[in-house]
Amino acid sequence: MNSSTKPSAGEAVVHVPIEAVDRFCREVFAAVGADEATADAATRAMIHGSRLGVDSHGVRLLAHYVKVMNGGRLNRTPNVRIVQSFGAVASLDTDHGHGALGAYRAMEHAVELAGTFGIGAVSIRNSSHFGPAGAYVMEAARRGFVGLAVCNSDSFVRLHDGAMRFHGTNPIAFAVPVAGDNPWLLDMATSAVPYNRVQLYRSLGMQLPEGVASEADGSNTLDPSLVEMLAPVGGEFGFKGAGLAGFAEILSAVFSGMKLSFDILPMNGPDVSTPRGLGAFVLALKPGAFVSEETFQAGMQRYVEVLRTSPAREGMTVMAPGDREWRVACEREQTGVPLDPATRDAFAELAEHHRLTPPFGQ
Amino acid sequence: MNSSTKPSAGEAVVHVPIEAVDRFCREVFAAVGADEATADAATRAMIHGSRLGVDSHGVRLLAHYVKVMNGGRLNRTPNVRIVQSFGAVASLDTDHGHGALGAYRAMEHAVELAGTFGIGAVSIRNSSHFGPAGAYVMEAARRGFVGLAVCNSDSFVRLHDGAMRFHGTNPIAFAVPVAGDNPWLLDMATSAVPYNRVQLYRSLGMQLPEGVASEADGSNTLDPSLVEMLAPVGGEFGFKGAGLAGFAEILSAVFSGMKLSFDILPMNGPDVSTPRGLGAFVLALKPGAFVSEETFQAGMQRYVEVLRTSPAREGMTVMAPGDREWRVACEREQTGVPLDPATRDAFAELAEHHRLTPPFGQ
Repeated sequence: MNSSTKPSAGEAVVHVPIEAVDRFCREVFAAVGADEATADAATRAMIHGSRLGVDSHGVRLLAHYVKVMNGGRLNRTPNVRIVQSFGAVASLDTDHGHGALGAYRAMEHAVELAGTFGIGAVSIRNSSHFGPAGAYVMEAARRGFVGLAVCNSDSFVRLHDGAMRFHGTNPIAFAVPVAGDNPWLLDMATSAVPYNRVQLYRSLGMQLPEGVASEADGSNTLDPSLVEMLAPVGGEFGFKGAGLAGFAEILSAVFSGMKLSFDILPMNGPDVSTPRGLGAFVLALKPGAFVSEETFQAGMQRYVEVLRTSPAREGMTVMAPGDREWRVACEREQTGVPLDPATRDAFAELAEHHRLTPPFGQ
Repeated sequence: MNSSTKPSAGEAVVHVPIEAVDRFCREVFAAVGADEATADAATRAMIHGSRLGVDSHGVRLLAHYVKVMNGGRLNRTPNVRIVQSFGAVASLDTDHGHGALGAYRAMEHAVELAGTFGIGAVSIRNSSHFGPAGAYVMEAARRGFVGLAVCNSDSFVRLHDGAMRFHGTNPIAFAVPVAGDNPWLLDMATSAVPYNRVQLYRSLGMQLPEGVASEADGSNTLDPSLVEMLAPVGGEFGFKGAGLAGFAEILSAVFSGMKLSFDILPMNGPDVSTPRGLGAFVLALKPGAFVSEETFQAGMQRYVEVLRTSPAREGMTVMAPGDREWRVACEREQTGVPLDPATRDAFAELAEHHRLTPPFGQ
């Protein structure tokens, strides 16, 4: 790469066509020795994030994944397999491979089980950071099934009235197919805000909203520089957010025999060689096993139609879960995905190191 | 009953032994012609509420249930049955009987399915108000299974940025057995607060907390007398609460072909003869189908132990979901359950009308 045209960190965000970023991610994974299944799963999950505007779980993660593959934490050629089966449920071992590979495989199997039994659930062992939970439930919805996915992660969120990093941001994702339309797609962290929101406010020198983050003693703060932990969603009803985080924690970690959030090595810590022992959990439901497909589809269509046309607060718009994301996806299919300066620089370095063409041209 | 000893509305709350209230509820149901299964299910559900301190779903509902049985809305002798089966899932028709009967039966069947398939889910049709969702997941936990229960109800909660009563308070309940201990029990409305909280603040002449309830245009208000709808849990992140309400709505109403919240006749409306067409949904998981029972139990024990001994904010205590309820239950097993003046008067009237002995003596 010609260093005179290499974009520098001082420049603004660049927009890059989705296909170009997709191609680049796959080439990088191949260059660092990841097998094709890993490259495919990790790329698809990141592109889901970048396409739908969930940039924290988008292609900015590429450099991180490469680092932990090189460090040995992530198995580049894992033997992902079902290690336990019982009726309509199974346990899948990701063999310390990429979390996206484990989660896609698990959801595929859950959908297969749901096709046979009306419902299927797969617990995931020996996994790693899986990125956007919404990516996996979308796979269920794409096939006409309802999908649920949860995971836990290294702890960063206090309990209600707690003063310790206890849960991860433990997301809950749920997708429901809607005939002739985008799925209804909920993908929410059980913390009030993601940590990168705190970082954004810090870099902008702005005060945080009330009740979203806390100091070391658990008391809330508006100053992003004092933040030691996030608050569970719900504010003064944070026991609900903490309870939902527990729902994700129990299904992800206890059902898989994996580490609880407070025992997990930090994602961005100095140790990049020790597998982190993450769990996760996916579930699929076949609507037609409960009511006729026609009844189900008519119900969903009426639900989202009444929702989208319902009265809004002054100056606001009412949206179904996922509507904001589909809007962003539409836009980004035209304009490309934004690469922040740090991600762009990381891409340039990866391209240079592996003699690849970066997605933003030379 | 001797009217000179009949408690009057002006008196304070009376406390009554659980067994006496339990006996009285069953006698009243028998007196109004409910079959034994209905009397048993409805009583157990209400006693769950009254015992654990969820008084809004406790024995104060007895007079309401009697009214709608007499009005014809509730079928006193329903033919509750499985009407559709597919592998590990089923659909149960409550035949417009009491919601608690449908929900207990559905959870029993879900647990049976989970025993065979590792997981089981039952969609509930033609049901009615089922009271405390926690009652049904507790049945799963009592048998060593993990339980999930959701329902929808007549709409009272706006969407995020919405200005219409859209969802019911749509609860999500989840229980997980803990060896040698009470279960981990989450039973939460997806609204910020229950409506009876608003009524309480109104009767006390107090201002509401911020962001929990709204006027007709969807704008939030602190004045309980102006409240036209509740806010979804989450405050400025209310899209999460609204999304979780949708999760409950879709599983309860769309998976059963029943009415969406905004189409449901009000629970306390003038029409007490038309069945309301409620749906609900229960799910059970067999932990031992995913990991060994020992691994599961060790994981849960460590989880709740670290949780309960974790650092708290100054002057606060950290509790696992359900801990507050177990504490109340302990207390009430000693002191009895409180009957507010309106409930006490209703009990006195029911006793007089049906020539029964009220639980608070003559």
